[in-house]
Amino acid sequence: MTDRRNLLAASSAALALPALIGRANAQTAAPAGASAPAQAPGFYRFRVGSFVATTVWDGFAARQNPGTGWITNADQAAVEGALRDAMLSTARLDNPFIVTFLETPAGLTMFDSGTGGQLAPTAGRMRENLAAAGIDPLRVTRILVSHFHGDHITGLTTAENAAVFPNAQVFVPEVEWAFWADATNESRVPQAQRGTFANVTRRFGPYQGKLERFAAGAEILPGVRAVAAYGHTPGHTVFHVADGTEQLFVTADTSSRPELFLRNPGWSSIFDIDGPAATASRLAIFGRIAGERARMTAYHFPFPANGFIQRMGEGFRFVPADWSNAI
Amino acid sequence: MTDRRNLLAASSAALALPALIGRANAQTAAPAGASAPAQAPGFYRFRVGSFVATTVWDGFAARQNPGTGWITNADQAAVEGALRDAMLSTARLDNPFIVTFLETPAGLTMFDSGTGGQLAPTAGRMRENLAAAGIDPLRVTRILVSHFHGDHITGLTTAENAAVFPNAQVFVPEVEWAFWADATNESRVPQAQRGTFANVTRRFGPYQGKLERFAAGAEILPGVRAVAAYGHTPGHTVFHVADGTEQLFVTADTSSRPELFLRNPGWSSIFDIDGPAATASRLAIFGRIAGERARMTAYHFPFPANGFIQRMGEGFRFVPADWSNAI
Repeated sequence: MTDRRNLLAASSAALALPALIGRANAQTAAPAGASAPAQAPGFYRFRVGSFVATTVWDGFAARQNPGTGWITNADQAAVEGALRDAMLSTARLDNPFIVTFLETPAGLTMFDSGTGGQLAPTAGRMRENLAAAGIDPLRVTRILVSHFHGDHITGLTTAENAAVFPNAQVFVPEVEWAFWADATNESRVPQAQRGTFANVTRRFGPYQGKLERFAAGAEILPGVRAVAAYGHTPGHTVFHVADGTEQLFVTADTSSRPELFLRNPGWSSIFDIDGPAATASRLAIFGRIAGERARMTAYHFPFPANGFIQRMGEGFRFVPADWSNAI
Repeated sequence: MTDRRNLLAASSAALALPALIGRANAQTAAPAGASAPAQAPGFYRFRVGSFVATTVWDGFAARQNPGTGWITNADQAAVEGALRDAMLSTARLDNPFIVTFLETPAGLTMFDSGTGGQLAPTAGRMRENLAAAGIDPLRVTRILVSHFHGDHITGLTTAENAAVFPNAQVFVPEVEWAFWADATNESRVPQAQRGTFANVTRRFGPYQGKLERFAAGAEILPGVRAVAAYGHTPGHTVFHVADGTEQLFVTADTSSRPELFLRNPGWSSIFDIDGPAATASRLAIFGRIAGERARMTAYHFPFPANGFIQRMGEGFRFVPADWSNAI
């Protein structure tokens, strides 16, 4: 892992956080008044064979005027039409952050990290929701990282850059690692993503000696396999969970909000480093999930982000699974 | 209210509970093992103008082989096809029970009552979820009843028939009251619903002196109006909540599970006393909600049952609203 040594030897200077997400509107998000009513805790449990998955709400970032400045290859009227078709506002769209946990005989695995409360005033609720769910971060033994955008790795460490999951090994896609470890790639990413290089150095630093790179197709732990879904970033990876006849795809950012990118798999966002490759991965991954009627989750889908995928027109749609207290 | 006096003077003999719901499969529903993981509490809050609504999960009843013996005017292949289209099982369908609460300047209003833990082993969780939501049943000042099927009124009283909401007035549709108050109507309902006559007597008994009948169109409290949706039962009523420019339709059983009766408004179930009238109400109510892009909830929709309605083909579809911690 010479790349890792080189990467971790790189600058640990203060980080300009990448502008990966829209500015949050704290005024709109905060409930009014001291007696504001409380929401239910943001976690949801369901079984995958004998495994138990829990999706945990870390909060959201609000994007103002989502019809402009986000989708790079569709005009404002088309984007706003898709939002209206989905009963969403054209003035503001909330982008959720949802982290998946999986209990298997091999221990407690976490998929991506949440924002760590460092990216948007309306995000950073994962710890309180984990507490409500009875999940101790110290019990996490494996962290599987889909890709290195800030909202997926910043929660690995505190603002002071201490490891939040000190008992975890961190598994990263080797293709993703190779890309962000090479500072000469800076010119190959949009300006707004250049801070990612320094953030990668910073967030993985405290896990030195516990980092493992995996290849596409690798079985990372019994029942959990990596599936390449390159394009959103060069090494963007999803995870396939299987136990007995049941399966779950942890699809990360293969599609951001489903009302836009599932319905229109050809659309690209300013966060897709290679839009056409991201579209090809989207068609392949969601085509497979739809064909197998498999369960899936995703990082930016409506909470609790537990459901299925169906083909619809030229694209797909997300079909949420029933909520139930019976796990 | 002579009808009420007559009704309340009727038999208080032990009640054979109406078989309104499928048998629950407790074995399937219960999580395995003593260390079974816990689900998040079942409540969800959202605003309607300055009002705050909370939908509360009372549990569910499981129907085995929902393709048979339930829908009266569609064959098994059609019903099972609709279930498969919705990614639902054809072997078992869970029917949720979801009670809506509304905080307004006039106090705390409850819509229907839940099962009171007396109808299915997998239902009766409203009280624990109310506690989690910080809602004290003693604070309920008004109960608005949509219709008198057992899953909507049994929770008014305990198994010993004490009032669960002793500080509440109970508002009932005058047409519904007139029907079930008249025992000569027994021959006009399916055999399985005949127990409803006795259950009505029993459940409203402890609220004697606090019962109010309302007419279709009446404003029951500021911002909440009754809307006739007859057919499912003779006086089945929905409620329209409005504050400023925002509105919420509390649609009760205008449609049971949306994957069947919204998608196929012409389908009737064994619980519809007048199927064609229920279909006409369904088309009218959901057509209005879709046309106005209004928010709605329903008693048997997937939790948290907060969303919108869109026209789709010859019917409609339910579009869940985003979950958010920001109320």
